[in-house]
This record gives sequence, C-alpha cells and structure tokens, in this order.
Amino acid sequence: MESFIYYNPTKILFGRGKEEEIGEVLKGDKVKRVLFLYGRESIKKMGLYKKVVFALKNAGIEYIEHGGVKPNPLLSHTIEGIRKAKEAKVEAILGVGGGSVVDEAKAIALGVKVGEDNLWSYFRHEKEIEEALPVYDILTLAATGTEMNGNAVITHDETKEKLYISSPLLCPRVSILNPELTYSVPKEYQAYATVDVIAHLIELYFSAEYCPTLQARFIESLIKTVMETTEAILQNPTDYEARAEFMWASTLALNGLAQIGFKGGGFPNHLIAHAIGGLYDLPHGACLSLVIPAWMLWYKDKNLKQFERFAKEIFGKRQAEEGITSLKKWFQKIGSPVSFKEVGLDEKALNEIAQMVEQTAPVWGLERIYDYHTTTQILRFTLDES
Amino acid sequence: MESFIYYNPTKILFGRGKEEEIGEVLKGDKVKRVLFLYGRESIKKMGLYKKVVFALKNAGIEYIEHGGVKPNPLLSHTIEGIRKAKEAKVEAILGVGGGSVVDEAKAIALGVKVGEDNLWSYFRHEKEIEEALPVYDILTLAATGTEMNGNAVITHDETKEKLYISSPLLCPRVSILNPELTYSVPKEYQAYATVDVIAHLIELYFSAEYCPTLQARFIESLIKTVMETTEAILQNPTDYEARAEFMWASTLALNGLAQIGFKGGGFPNHLIAHAIGGLYDLPHGACLSLVIPAWMLWYKDKNLKQFERFAKEIFGKRQAEEGITSLKKWFQKIGSPVSFKEVGLDEKALNEIAQMVEQTAPVWGLERIYDYHTTTQILRFTLDES
Repeated sequence: MESFIYYNPTKILFGRGKEEEIGEVLKGDKVKRVLFLYGRESIKKMGLYKKVVFALKNAGIEYIEHGGVKPNPLLSHTIEGIRKAKEAKVEAILGVGGGSVVDEAKAIALGVKVGEDNLWSYFRHEKEIEEALPVYDILTLAATGTEMNGNAVITHDETKEKLYISSPLLCPRVSILNPELTYSVPKEYQAYATVDVIAHLIELYFSAEYCPTLQARFIESLIKTVMETTEAILQNPTDYEARAEFMWASTLALNGLAQIGFKGGGFPNHLIAHAIGGLYDLPHGACLSLVIPAWMLWYKDKNLKQFERFAKEIFGKRQAEEGITSLKKWFQKIGSPVSFKEVGLDEKALNEIAQMVEQTAPVWGLERIYDYHTTTQILRFTLDES
Repeated sequence: MESFIYYNPTKILFGRGKEEEIGEVLKGDKVKRVLFLYGRESIKKMGLYKKVVFALKNAGIEYIEHGGVKPNPLLSHTIEGIRKAKEAKVEAILGVGGGSVVDEAKAIALGVKVGEDNLWSYFRHEKEIEEALPVYDILTLAATGTEMNGNAVITHDETKEKLYISSPLLCPRVSILNPELTYSVPKEYQAYATVDVIAHLIELYFSAEYCPTLQARFIESLIKTVMETTEAILQNPTDYEARAEFMWASTLALNGLAQIGFKGGGFPNHLIAHAIGGLYDLPHGACLSLVIPAWMLWYKDKNLKQFERFAKEIFGKRQAEEGITSLKKWFQKIGSPVSFKEVGLDEKALNEIAQMVEQTAPVWGLERIYDYHTTTQILRFTLDES
C-alpha cells in the first residue's frame, strides 16, 4: 500500500424518517440561519420540501431559499446563491436534493468565504481552499458520493468547462440518508447513478500501477452489491433493502476508502465524461457509460491482469475482453447509453470533446496522457459503435 | 439495512516514517504539553522512543512520561496517569504502543475531565461521556482497531472486571500507522492480533438477526485479507505489503464500518474473552481463540445459513461445521490456543469465568442470554477439547 492520509469527518444519519431531524441537527450545532438550496419541483412533489420547512421552523432555524439548481450545476446559479447567502448572513448551507444540489451547496459554502469573483480560480486549482461555511444535506439521489466527501463539480456557463474542487473542509458536517427518499428516482436516472458509482470504483482499480488486494476485494464487493441492488431497484423501485444497500454502497464508493493505497492512477473516465457533460449538458452517468467501455478497450493491455481479475470476479469470465463486453452489455441492459449515436453525438462532437479534454486534463493531473490525439483514439471505440 | 449513525473523525496518517511527523501534528493542533504514554521497553529497543522525543522537542512540545502500561491495562496505572496529567496540566494524551497503550490513553483523557474517582462508573456504563482530552497515537501493534474508534478497555485491579467505554469523543484526533513499526511484533502476538481482528469481523456477522449482503461481503473481504497477510507475515515478518494490508484491515475491522446496518446481535465472544483475560491476565487474542470455535459450535444452528455462507466464502466448504473446524485448525496453525488445557485452565476456571460473564454481561447488553448456565455450556466445548 502507498502512504496515505484518511480523514472524513462527515456524520451520516442513515434510515427511515431521518430527514425530520434536520432542524434539531442544525440547532445542536448552534446554526441559526441557513441557505436552503434545492433543485426543481421534485422535492415539493414528494412532500420533502414541506417536511424540511416544518423541521426548520420547529427548531427555530431561519432559512433563505435558493431553488433551481440544475443537474449540471452552473457557476452563474452558484454565484447568485453566494450573493443571497452573504446578504442574509447565513451560517451554513443546507442542500436538499441529489449530488448537484450538494455540490452547489459546497461551492456556495466556499464562495461565501472567498468571494464570488474568486471562486472559479479554485476550480482551476490555482488557489488552495482554507475555509468554507459548514454544509448539511438531505440526499434524494444516491450516486455521486458527494454526501461524504469534500468534492464538488460545477460547470462554467460560458467556457463550458466542468471542473471540480476538493478539500476536507468541504465534507458535509452532517448528511442525512433516507433510502425512501430515493424511491421516486426514475429508472433512467437510477441507471445513470449506477454507472457513476461503478465508475468511482473502477477508475483507480484499473488505472493505478498497483492496486492492493484489500482494495481490489473491497471494490469488487461494492460493484457486486451495486449491480445486484440496481437490478432489484429497476424491478421494484420501492424495495427498501435494495435502495438502502445501493445508497450506502454509493457513499462508500467515493468517501475516500476505495481510493487509498494505490500507486499512481487517476480518474480518466471522469475527465472525459465531464468534458462531454459540460459541452452537451448530458447526464453525468450517461456520459460515463459512453466513455468507460471505450476507455477499457483502449487501456486493457496496459494492465491486463487486473482486467482479467475484474472479468473473473464480477462476471465469472476468463478473458479481459469478456469482462469489458459484459459490463457494456450490462450498461445497455439497465438503460444507459454506450454509443455516441444513442445520444446524438457525432464525429464533430468527438473533436470538440477531445479538445476540451486536452484543455481540462491539467486540473486532473492527467495532461501527460490525455491529449487531443489520445482522447480521439479512445472515443473512436464509442463512435464506431454507432 | 437497519438505521445507523456513522461518525468517525479520526485522521489517519499511514505509511513509512509517518511517526516523525508527530511533533508537527501536535503543533498544528496548537497542543503545547502532552502526557506521553507507553508500555515497557519495546519502543526504546526499536528506537521509536528516541524518534518521538526528538520530534516533540523539535516542535517545542513539552511532555510528561508515563511508561509501564500493561498488556491488559489496569485501572490503578490509569489513575496514576490521570494524576500526572492533571498535575502537569497537559492538553492532550499521546499514546505510543499497541492497543493497550491507546486504550489507557483514552481512559486517561476521560479521567482528566471527570476525575479519577468517577472514572470506573463510566466503565460500568452508569454515566454518559461528555468530554475528554484529545488523544493522539503512534501504533506499534495492529490488532484492536482502537486507533480509529472511540472504545477503550481497562481491567479493575481488585474485582478483575475487564470493561469498556465507548464514545465518539474518545476517537483519537490523529493516529499514525507505519507498518514498519509492527515488524518486531513476535509471531505469537501476531497470531493473537489476527484472532482479535477476525473476532471483530465475525461477532455481528454471526450473532445478528439480519446481516446486509453488502456488510457480509465487506467482512469476508477483510477476513480473507487478514488470513492471507497473517500467513505472509509469519513467513516473513518484514514483508511491508503484508504488514500494511494487515494493519489497515485491522483498522477497518473495528472503525464502525463493519458494524453498521445489522439487526440485533452483539459481541458475545468478546464478553467471554474479556472475562478470561481479566481473571487470568492472558492475551486478549488467545482468550478469543479459546472462545470463538466453542461459541460457533454452540450458536451455529441459530443462524445456519450464515455459518454455511462463511464456510463457503472463507474456506470453500459446504457445511457450517466444516467452516468452524477449518477456522479452529487455522487458529492452531498460526499458534493461538483453542483449548483450556493449552493455557492451563480447568473446570474450576470455567466456573469462575462463567460467573464473571454473568456479572459483566449487562454492560454488553447481553445479560438475557449469557448467564452462568449458558456460558458453561459454551465453554464446555473448549474444556472438553483438553
């Protein structure tokens, strides 16, 4: 195992009805005024909005609303939130929604401290994060793992760059995870969520020079659970046990535990998928399922043993290529796209994406490999599928 | 999955040479004076004592020494430590050693706040922990998981009760894990450490009414790694990779992750092993290997499917009983005792142990099952082995 630092101070409240505790949680932390962040109408439809408002009022917490967070949250909306938060002198940000809402909550939490004009330079990794307001959240879509890590991804409205920030200071103070709140996630978004979780698990597993056996086993355990529970959820969206195991697995997939001890490696599939998502406003998971099988085919000979291990452990197959094909077929089966054609992208898009990858790769520390040329090579596997 | 709260704010610094950072770590947290706790001569022999002193002096940290912590740390020595700590007005406790040292560090950290006369009532679970000094540690024996949890076990000198306290407030602020510092652990103590880690992993796995599949997989992954790395370590004590994976697995085995989402269950093997350890001052792991196969034989029909799963996943066997026999043989193979005879205990001891179990079971919430009669039934499997 390589040397590592592990530190994750997020407190998780997991289980039925836990969202009703949000008022007391904030009060216990002596928070009196929050920015209440959410997306569109879904939290109102499901009755969660009312519950949160009731809990906040009951605990005597003042709140200022900032609705309308988009699935690929935008810098402009983040900046609006920062201005509201500063004007109202809130002491914390409360995000109620999926990964996008929590990510924007983190970006606002940082922006309040550093100023809206300076915020993007943190996403370009030009400055180091030193302080942020505390973030709290109630999660309604299990996917990104943001509820228990210090990462946040925002898209720049004009340049279309989709970049991330990362700091332990951005770990939510408390995250509330009630699997029942994910019952209404539509099947296609469940599929995208699943792809995202699998992506978090396989990025270092495949791309690292060395993967400790302990980490390989941990990751394979999570992948198996994610696949089984996804199939159960698609059959029966209100299967509590499946929703619960999926939700916790998605948290564990990116709370840092699955990413330590590796030698080298990175998040190349995320790099490319973010380029696609930023340019064409496609769901993150859909972008990932376009990229992953292509990247795997391109990469497999560089780490053949690990690809063979994956084929065997996950699909009971012998050949590396069978593992890749099985995963691709499984993505198709659950309803996530695996070819450019399915999402209306073409050769021209491929070039734009490759340019964006080359431009954003330095932020991911991947500029030595993922230049324009390499990216087109990889994406050709997906394009040719069409 | 059952509802749960997960919160673990310990920061882990893992890798070669990390112990040299202890001075800067304390300085970074604005700690100026610590109680420096350790066991017997081993940290001096291995040169660690000098390194710690050098690091502390270099960072301008004052320290008061409190050596002589015993393998089953005693209340009397803890109380001495509390007095020293109070007199010197230390701001934190630094434990350098194995689980015993870290446990006593936590007990002192609590005792400084609540007073030495009140301390034992916390172990009897009569009072709730509300504050403690911060604890830091450098670990030299991977086994108990204390480096990343809020638990501590202390033995009462007179009554021989061996009881525990548990609170997130007792989680070490920072734990330093350098696998090289475990190179000098003797083979028999490595075996005891291994048994302890396996015990942490199987207690709820077997005793819970319901074990989520995700948790079963996580636990089985850890058991496999623990067994493989133990064999490698016994072959070659300076195998860094094996020491590292074992060390991190032992942390993960009791940092809370492997214990959430279960329905019911408890730590019956620990309850009984602590009774033995408190009465006869035997190593904790040795007590556990005496108890576990006996408890498993006694319990297996109450949760047959899970015992069959264990047999299959860990040993590739079909029958529950084969899994138990295989585990017992493996304990023997690595050198941990599985019969009373091996450690010089007899029928009389069995009765004393069963009495102590009945007396301490309420602290573990296990008084409804583990009375005198049941405990003698269980231990008879171990006694009859003689």
